[in-house]
Amino acid sequence: MSMPDAMPLPGVGEELKQAKEIEDAEKYSFMATVTKAPKKQIQFADDMQEFSRFPTKTGRRSLSRSISQSSTDSYSSDMSALISLRKRAQGEKPLAGAKIVGCTHITAQTAVLIETLCALGAQCRWSACNIYSTQNEVAAALAEAGVAVFAWKGESEDDFWWCIDRCVNMDGWQANMILDDGGDLTHWVYKKYPNVFKKIRGIVEESVTGVHRLYQLSKAGKLCVPAMNVNDSVTKQKFDNLYCCRESILDGLKRTTDVMFGGKQVVVCGYGEVGKGCCAALKALGAIVYITEIDPICALQACMDGFRVVKLNEVIRQVDVVITCTGNKNVVTREHLDRMKNSCIVCNMGHSNTEIDVTSLRTPELTWERVRSQVDHVIWPDGKRVVLLAEGRLLNLSCSTVPTFVLSITATTQALALIELYNAPEGRYKQDVYLLPKKMDEYVASLHLPSFDAHLTELTDDQAKYLGLNKNGPFKPNYYRY
Amino acid sequence: MSMPDAMPLPGVGEELKQAKEIEDAEKYSFMATVTKAPKKQIQFADDMQEFSRFPTKTGRRSLSRSISQSSTDSYSSDMSALISLRKRAQGEKPLAGAKIVGCTHITAQTAVLIETLCALGAQCRWSACNIYSTQNEVAAALAEAGVAVFAWKGESEDDFWWCIDRCVNMDGWQANMILDDGGDLTHWVYKKYPNVFKKIRGIVEESVTGVHRLYQLSKAGKLCVPAMNVNDSVTKQKFDNLYCCRESILDGLKRTTDVMFGGKQVVVCGYGEVGKGCCAALKALGAIVYITEIDPICALQACMDGFRVVKLNEVIRQVDVVITCTGNKNVVTREHLDRMKNSCIVCNMGHSNTEIDVTSLRTPELTWERVRSQVDHVIWPDGKRVVLLAEGRLLNLSCSTVPTFVLSITATTQALALIELYNAPEGRYKQDVYLLPKKMDEYVASLHLPSFDAHLTELTDDQAKYLGLNKNGPFKPNYYRY
Amino acid sequence: MSMPDAMPLPGVGEELKQAKEIEDAEKYSFMATVTKAPKKQIQFADDMQEFSRFPTKTGRRSLSRSISQSSTDSYSSDMSALISLRKRAQGEKPLAGAKIVGCTHITAQTAVLIETLCALGAQCRWSACNIYSTQNEVAAALAEAGVAVFAWKGESEDDFWWCIDRCVNMDGWQANMILDDGGDLTHWVYKKYPNVFKKIRGIVEESVTGVHRLYQLSKAGKLCVPAMNVNDSVTKQKFDNLYCCRESILDGLKRTTDVMFGGKQVVVCGYGEVGKGCCAALKALGAIVYITEIDPICALQACMDGFRVVKLNEVIRQVDVVITCTGNKNVVTREHLDRMKNSCIVCNMGHSNTEIDVTSLRTPELTWERVRSQVDHVIWPDGKRVVLLAEGRLLNLSCSTVPTFVLSITATTQALALIELYNAPEGRYKQDVYLLPKKMDEYVASLHLPSFDAHLTELTDDQAKYLGLNKNGPFKPNYYRY
Amino acid sequence: MSMPDAMPLPGVGEELKQAKEIEDAEKYSFMATVTKAPKKQIQFADDMQEFSRFPTKTGRRSLSRSISQSSTDSYSSDMSALISLRKRAQGEKPLAGAKIVGCTHITAQTAVLIETLCALGAQCRWSACNIYSTQNEVAAALAEAGVAVFAWKGESEDDFWWCIDRCVNMDGWQANMILDDGGDLTHWVYKKYPNVFKKIRGIVEESVTGVHRLYQLSKAGKLCVPAMNVNDSVTKQKFDNLYCCRESILDGLKRTTDVMFGGKQVVVCGYGEVGKGCCAALKALGAIVYITEIDPICALQACMDGFRVVKLNEVIRQVDVVITCTGNKNVVTREHLDRMKNSCIVCNMGHSNTEIDVTSLRTPELTWERVRSQVDHVIWPDGKRVVLLAEGRLLNLSCSTVPTFVLSITATTQALALIELYNAPEGRYKQDVYLLPKKMDEYVASLHLPSFDAHLTELTDDQAKYLGLNKNGPFKPNYYRY
Repeated sequence: MSMPDAMPLPGVGEELKQAKEIEDAEKYSFMATVTKAPKKQIQFADDMQEFSRFPTKTGRRSLSRSISQSSTDSYSSDMSALISLRKRAQGEKPLAGAKIVGCTHITAQTAVLIETLCALGAQCRWSACNIYSTQNEVAAALAEAGVAVFAWKGESEDDFWWCIDRCVNMDGWQANMILDDGGDLTHWVYKKYPNVFKKIRGIVEESVTGVHRLYQLSKAGKLCVPAMNVNDSVTKQKFDNLYCCRESILDGLKRTTDVMFGGKQVVVCGYGEVGKGCCAALKALGAIVYITEIDPICALQACMDGFRVVKLNEVIRQVDVVITCTGNKNVVTREHLDRMKNSCIVCNMGHSNTEIDVTSLRTPELTWERVRSQVDHVIWPDGKRVVLLAEGRLLNLSCSTVPTFVLSITATTQALALIELYNAPEGRYKQDVYLLPKKMDEYVASLHLPSFDAHLTELTDDQAKYLGLNKNGPFKPNYYRY
Repeated sequence: MSMPDAMPLPGVGEELKQAKEIEDAEKYSFMATVTKAPKKQIQFADDMQEFSRFPTKTGRRSLSRSISQSSTDSYSSDMSALISLRKRAQGEKPLAGAKIVGCTHITAQTAVLIETLCALGAQCRWSACNIYSTQNEVAAALAEAGVAVFAWKGESEDDFWWCIDRCVNMDGWQANMILDDGGDLTHWVYKKYPNVFKKIRGIVEESVTGVHRLYQLSKAGKLCVPAMNVNDSVTKQKFDNLYCCRESILDGLKRTTDVMFGGKQVVVCGYGEVGKGCCAALKALGAIVYITEIDPICALQACMDGFRVVKLNEVIRQVDVVITCTGNKNVVTREHLDRMKNSCIVCNMGHSNTEIDVTSLRTPELTWERVRSQVDHVIWPDGKRVVLLAEGRLLNLSCSTVPTFVLSITATTQALALIELYNAPEGRYKQDVYLLPKKMDEYVASLHLPSFDAHLTELTDDQAKYLGLNKNGPFKPNYYRY
Repeated sequence: MSMPDAMPLPGVGEELKQAKEIEDAEKYSFMATVTKAPKKQIQFADDMQEFSRFPTKTGRRSLSRSISQSSTDSYSSDMSALISLRKRAQGEKPLAGAKIVGCTHITAQTAVLIETLCALGAQCRWSACNIYSTQNEVAAALAEAGVAVFAWKGESEDDFWWCIDRCVNMDGWQANMILDDGGDLTHWVYKKYPNVFKKIRGIVEESVTGVHRLYQLSKAGKLCVPAMNVNDSVTKQKFDNLYCCRESILDGLKRTTDVMFGGKQVVVCGYGEVGKGCCAALKALGAIVYITEIDPICALQACMDGFRVVKLNEVIRQVDVVITCTGNKNVVTREHLDRMKNSCIVCNMGHSNTEIDVTSLRTPELTWERVRSQVDHVIWPDGKRVVLLAEGRLLNLSCSTVPTFVLSITATTQALALIELYNAPEGRYKQDVYLLPKKMDEYVASLHLPSFDAHLTELTDDQAKYLGLNKNGPFKPNYYRY
Repeated sequence: MSMPDAMPLPGVGEELKQAKEIEDAEKYSFMATVTKAPKKQIQFADDMQEFSRFPTKTGRRSLSRSISQSSTDSYSSDMSALISLRKRAQGEKPLAGAKIVGCTHITAQTAVLIETLCALGAQCRWSACNIYSTQNEVAAALAEAGVAVFAWKGESEDDFWWCIDRCVNMDGWQANMILDDGGDLTHWVYKKYPNVFKKIRGIVEESVTGVHRLYQLSKAGKLCVPAMNVNDSVTKQKFDNLYCCRESILDGLKRTTDVMFGGKQVVVCGYGEVGKGCCAALKALGAIVYITEIDPICALQACMDGFRVVKLNEVIRQVDVVITCTGNKNVVTREHLDRMKNSCIVCNMGHSNTEIDVTSLRTPELTWERVRSQVDHVIWPDGKRVVLLAEGRLLNLSCSTVPTFVLSITATTQALALIELYNAPEGRYKQDVYLLPKKMDEYVASLHLPSFDAHLTELTDDQAKYLGLNKNGPFKPNYYRY
C-alpha cells in the first residue's frame, strides 16, 4: 500500500530542519548501562560467538529453518548485531510491559527483530506494510512462536487494512508503542482509534514516506506523541545509500541485462550518497562515468573524484547506460530518450518512479517488448531499442537483493529507538519528531563491528580530557559529516 | 560431453612451448587487404552504424527474434565486430568453397558466427559440443535459414555422438575445415573417418581441453593437418580471464548468496589473470583480500597491487570467502574446510572441479542441504555451515552469465583463424599447432574498438621508420606481455 | 607566532554546537544579485577566459611576475575563482568603505585576495600571521601596488607584534573589518585597542586555533562583534582535509624518504576526513593499510572501505609506516616506538605536534641523526632506526606544498564572508560566532567549477516546486553530510 | 656519456625476437643448490633479520654511513634481497676467480652490489657510466674498502674515457667478466683492447641502449662472447616500468609543479607498461585520463580499464596535462603545443627526449622562462604559457627519485646474471644475446618477497605432477604475460 509513488515530497532539507536532537548522552539510562559495563561487554562477545557456532539450538530451530529456506545469505552471522543486543539486554528486560504494534515487511530479518523485542520483554502484534512482500513461512513460524501476526503474501487492499485493524483493535490489549514503516499503521490509528494515542509512548518510523507524514502532522500541530525518525540516522543512511547502492547497481544491471561494465559510457544523474555509491562501483569496474548535478558542492566533489560534470544533453547521444539518483522528477525526459543510441539501458536508483518520465513512452508510435522480468525494450519506429529496467521503479529494490547486513543495521536501529522512547523519562521527548541520538547511532555501529573482527581503540582518561569528550561517546558533533 | 573433468592436464607451459608462430605479417593476403584499405575501412564504419540503427532488417528478422528472446544483452551492438568483419569481407568471399564442420555451443552468438561464415562463402554443418547448452530456438532459426544443424537441449550421450556423426558422414559433401570446441568432433573424425583428413586444410580449436588434445596428437606425431590454437590468443585470453572474471566473480557471488562485499575478508588462491581479475573487483568493492601463490613473480605482483601474500592456513580461520583460481587440484582440502568459520563461502573460478576437494565432503558426519540452485550448505556436527557454490565447478560458468561482448571476441577470432588456415598458401603451416598470428590478434581487437567509440592513432611514415615497424602492425614482439 | 602548539583544544564537537547558522538565503542581497543574474554570469565566463589568455596585462604585471617566480603552479588558472568573483562584483563595489585590517600568510595567493578586496572597494592594511612564511617579493609587489603591508620573512617576535600594531594603530584610519588567521590580530586589538571594536562590523577567522579562541571569547561573553568561522565551511573542509591530504600524504612521504608505496604495510590512526584522504591514496598505490579508530561509526566506514580496523599494538611490529590523523595527543607512545621494526617511518598528518610523543624520544640512550631536512633517524642501542618526519609536526605543511587551488577555495570563502558581514543589515548577526551560510558555500564551489569545465544542471520551475527548493539554492539542509 | 639521445632505435620487437632463452632449469648448478636447500633457506631468513636489526656492524660502518647520508630511504631493508643473496651464496663463492670490470652509475645501491660481488669471490674494477651521477662519498667509501673505483661527479668527456680505460688497462690483471650499463665500456674494449675478449666469459648489460648495441653486434656477426640482456627480464621490466612509473609520475609532477591531481584532465600518449602505471595512479587520485594508442590490443585494454581512447587532436585543447609514454618520436608536435590551453603541463615519461618536439619550441616568437629547476614556461605572443618539464627528457629520472627497492631488483638480477654466465658449462651459451632464464627471474622475485613478509605456497608432489611442473619452478611458460 503506502503512499502513491508520484506524490511530491517537499525538500528533504525542510523536513530535517525540524528534527529535534537530544544531546546529553548521560540522560539515557539504557545507554549508560550498556556503555559503562566493559566486563559484561566481554561476556557478550563470548555469547555471540557461541551463537554463531550453534545456530540451530533448541527453541530457534523452526524459525531458522524457515529463514534458511528463504535466504542463503549468511543469516546467522549477518544478524548477529541484533542477537548481541538481545543477549546484552535481556537480563534487564528494557521492554518489559511494552505492547508494540508493528507494521513492516515480514521477512526472516524482521522475525529476528520481533524475537528480540519479545526477548526484551515486549508483547507484539504485527501486520505487513506491503501486500506482496510477506514471506508466508516466516509469518507461520512467528505465529507458531506465539506472536500475533496478520499477514500473507498477496493480500487485497481490504485484507491489508483488515490486518492492520486486527493488530490495533483488540479487547483487553492496548498498544503503547508503534513501529511503523510507511505510516499506514499510524494513519489508521489516527483515523479510527485516536484514543489509543493516550497510551502510546512513542512512534518509531523508518521510511522516507512515513517520516514525511510525521513531519506534516507535526507542522499541523496534530502529532500527539513523540516520534523517532530512524530513517535519517547516520549509520542507516550510509548503508541504505552509499554502501548498499555501491553493490546493488552492479547486481541489478547484471541480473537484468548481463551487460559488461568495462569500457561502457555511463551517465549518473545526481551525486548524492546514492550516486556516489553507483559511481565508485562502476568506475572500479572500468566504466567511464559522467555526472549531472544541480548542487555546486556535490558537483565539485564529482570533479575531485575524477568524473566529468556535464549537462545530460551533452552526453545523451553517446552513453550506454543512464542511471538516475536525484530524488527529483522528470530528470530523464522523452526528449532525452529520443536521442539515446540503440541498446541504451535506462534505470532508476533514486526516488520512487518519478525520475524517468516513463509515461511519455506510452505512446502509439513506440512498441514495448517485454524480454524478461523487469526488462522492457521500448522500440522506436526506426528500430532503435531503449532497454528500460523495472519500468523506472527503483532498480535495487526491483532487480537486486538487499544484503541481510543492511537490514540488520535498520532493525537494530529500530529496536534501540523503541527502547529509548519507551524508557525515556517524562519530558525528555515532546510531541515532535526526533533524530536518533548520536550516541545510539554509535552504539548501532559498534554492535556491527564484530562481524568484521574490527577492534576499537579506547581513549585514555588523559586523551578524553584533552579532547573534551566522554570516553564512551558521542565522539562527534551532531552535524559532523562522516 | 567433452573430457572428464578430473583428467590431469600437463603443465600449461609445456604445451605452449610447442606452439609455432608465424611472424611475417605480409604473408597473409587477407590481412594485407584489410589493413591496406583505409578507404574501405571508413566505409565499413558507416555500414556498421547503419546496422546498429536497423537491427531488424529483412533477412535477419527470424534469427534476431530468437536471439532477442534468449538474451536481453545489447545483442546488436555487442556482436558488431563480427558483423563488421562480415561486411568488410563478403565482397571477396574468402571462404568460398570452404566446407566447415563445426561443433560448439549453439547459442545466439554462435548463430551470428555461422551466419558470418556463410556470408563469406562457406557451407556449414553443425553439432553441439555440450548436451545441455543448446538454445533450441536458435537451432531452429539456423535450420530455417538453411544451415544443417544437429543439436537440441538435453541430448543423451548417444544423441550427442549421433549428431556429430551426422555432420561428418554425408554423401556428396566432405568437410575441408574443422571448427571444434573441446576436441570431440576432431576425436570422432580421427576415430571413424580418418580419410576425411586428406581434404581438411586445418582445425581451429578454442578450448583448453581441445588444445591439450591437439598437442598430445602433435607430440605423438599423429596430427596430420595444421591446427590453430585460438584459445591462447592475447585478446581472447584477456577477455576470458582478466576482464570477464573481474565482473563475473561479483555476479556469481551475488546471484547465489546475496553477500555484501564491503568489509568481507576473502582469500583468493592464485594470482594469474583470473585471480587478478577477481581481486581487482573485490578490492574495489571494499573487501579485504589475501592471496596465496606458488610463483614468486606473481606473488610479488600481488604485493605491489596491495594484497598480503599468505599460506592458506594462515587465514583460513578468519576469512568469509575462499575463491580458487589456480588451475591446480586439491588447493582447498578437507583440512582447510574443517577449519573454516561458520557461513564461510567456498567457490572455484579456476579449472574444472578439481581445485576444491569436494569429494572429501561426502562423508557421513557431514550433512548437505541444498538451499538454492547451485548453493549447498555443508553442515558439520557442531552446526557449522560452509556454503559451497556449484559443487566446486566453475562459478562464472555455473552461476553468472558471460557477456555477449566476450563471446564476440572468441567468435571473431575463430572466424579469422578459419579464413587464415583456409587461404594459407601451401607450406605456410605444417602438421602442427599454431598460435594466431599477432597481426590477426590485433585485427580482432581493432574490430571491437568501435563499440567503445575508441579512435586509434596512426603512425606517420617517419615514426614507423624510427620504430622499425610496419604502419599496419604487428606492433609488438610475440612475447610482449601486455 | 600563533598559539603554542601543545595547548589542549576542547572537543571539536563542543565548539561547533555553538555555531549559529543563518538559513534564509533570500536575506543576502549580494547573493541574490549574484544568483539572479544569469546574463551577467555568461559575461563573467567570457571575462575569465580573457583573463586566462592574457595574464600579464598592464597593471598586474609586477605582481604576477613575483608570483610566477615564487610558484610554478598554474597560478592564473588555479586562482581564477577569485578573479571571477572580482570581475563579477567590481561594478557594485560591495566593499566600498570597508577598511580591512588583515593578518595572514603573505604569499602570492594572498596577494590575489588582497587585490580582489581592493578592487571591490576596500582599503587594506596587512601583516603576517607567521614569522617565517612571508614571501618578500610578494610583500614588495603589494606595497608597490599601494597596499600597506608590514611583513618580511624572518621577523623576530618583537617585529611580529610591531607589524600587527602598525596595521591597527594609525591616525586617521580606523579598521571596520578584521580578517584573521590564528587570532593574533584579534587578540592584539582586544588587548591594546578595545575601542576599535566599536567600529568593527565583523571578524572573519579561518584557522582552527583562531576559531577556538573566538568560541572561548563567546562563551565568556566577551565577543563584542559578530564573527564568521570560515574554517568549518563544507567546501573548505573537504579541500583542506580529504582532497588535499589525499595528495599531500604521498608528496610528503616521497620528498622526505623516497619510499616506494607498493606493498608497504601502513597503519593510519584516525579515519576522519584526513585519514580517509590518506588511506584512499595509499591503497590506490598498492599499500596495505590498517586503521585505528575510537569512533564506531568511522570504524564501520573503514571496514566498508576495505580496511582492517585494529588496535595499534596489534600491528605496530609489522608496519613500515605509521601516520597519525586523530587530532588527539600521545596516540603514538614511546612504547609503540620501542616496538617498531627497523626503518619504520613515523609521521603526523593530524593536529599540531601532539599526536606522536616525540618528547619521549629525547632520552640519552637514543641517538638522533638528521639525515636530511625534516628527516631524523632515531637510533636505538641495538642499531634499530626509526625514521621520524618533521619532528612530529604536520607532514603536509612541513614537507609538501599546498596546491594553489586549495588556497583559492579558502581565499574565496574569506572574501565572501567579509562581503556578507560588511553588508549584512543591522540585526542579522549578533555578537556570536557563525558558520558561512550554505548558499555562500555553494557559491564558492560554483566559482571553482569552471576550472574543471564542469557544467551544472539547473532545476526547472516544476522540479524546484516538487523538491521544495529555490532554484538558486541552497540545495541541502544544513547538516547534509556530503 | 652514453649514446646520443636522439639516435633512432629499431623496433623493440625486432631485437627481442633474437633473444635466446635457456629453458632447462636443471642445468644451472647454482640455482639447483639454491632451490634444493630448504633448510639453508630458513637459516637465511634468520640471517637476514639479524642484518636488519644490526645494520651498523663492524666492517660495513663506513659505507653505510655514506649511504645514509645520501639517502633517507630505508636502505637496509630495501636492499635486503641482495644481502640475502650474499649470505646465501658466500659459502660457495660462486664468483671465486671472477675479475669483473664494471661501468654503471655509482651510488649507494651500486656499492651494495659491488660489495656483494666481492663477498662472492670476485675482484672488481669500476668506472661510472654517467659523468654527473657519481655520489663521491660512495666512491670514496668503496675505495676505502679496497675496490678500484675511477669516478667522480662532474667528469669531463676525457675524464670519462680515461676512467674506463683505467679499469680495463692494467698490467697483471685481466678482466674475465663485463658488467655494463649503456654499452660504453663494451664499446671501449671492442675498440681498444679486442684481445681482452679472449678471456671474457660474458657481458651483462642492463640498459635499452646497451642491449640495442649488443643486438647490432650480434646481427653483424661481431659479438664474440655470450651476453645477457637483463633489461628485459620480467621482474625488472615490471618494476622499472609499471610499478615505478605508477609512483614517479605523481612524484615528478608534484615536485616540479605542485599541481593538484583531482579533477585535472590528462592525456597519456601510449598505454604500454609505463602508460598503464601513469594512468592507474592519476585515475586513483581523481584525474580524468584520456589515452592515445597505435596498437589496437593496448587500446582495447585502455577501454576495459575505463579510459577513453582518442586521437591527440581531439582533446589537446582541453587537457591540463600531457604525458608521453610511447618510445616513439614527435608524438607531441609544435601544432599540438600551439593548441594547448594556458598553463598546460607537458612532460615525457617514455624514451629519451624524442617524444615531445622540443626543438620546434626554440623559435624567436616564443619566450622561454625558467621558473624553477627542470621547469620552463614557454610563452606564446598572446601570453599563453605552456609548462615544459625537464625540457622533454625523462621526468622520472630528472624530477623524481627511483626507490631503492627498484634498484635492488636490478642489482640482484645483474648479480645472478654474472654468476650464471661465469659458471655456465662450456657450450650452454653461444656468442649471442640471451634473456635471463625464467627460473632466475623467479629467484630474483623470491629474494624480494621477505621485504613484504609474503609467504609462498609450495606445490605438493602430487600437485606438481598434476601440473607437469618442477616444484622449484619455473612455473610459467617463457612467454606467459603476467
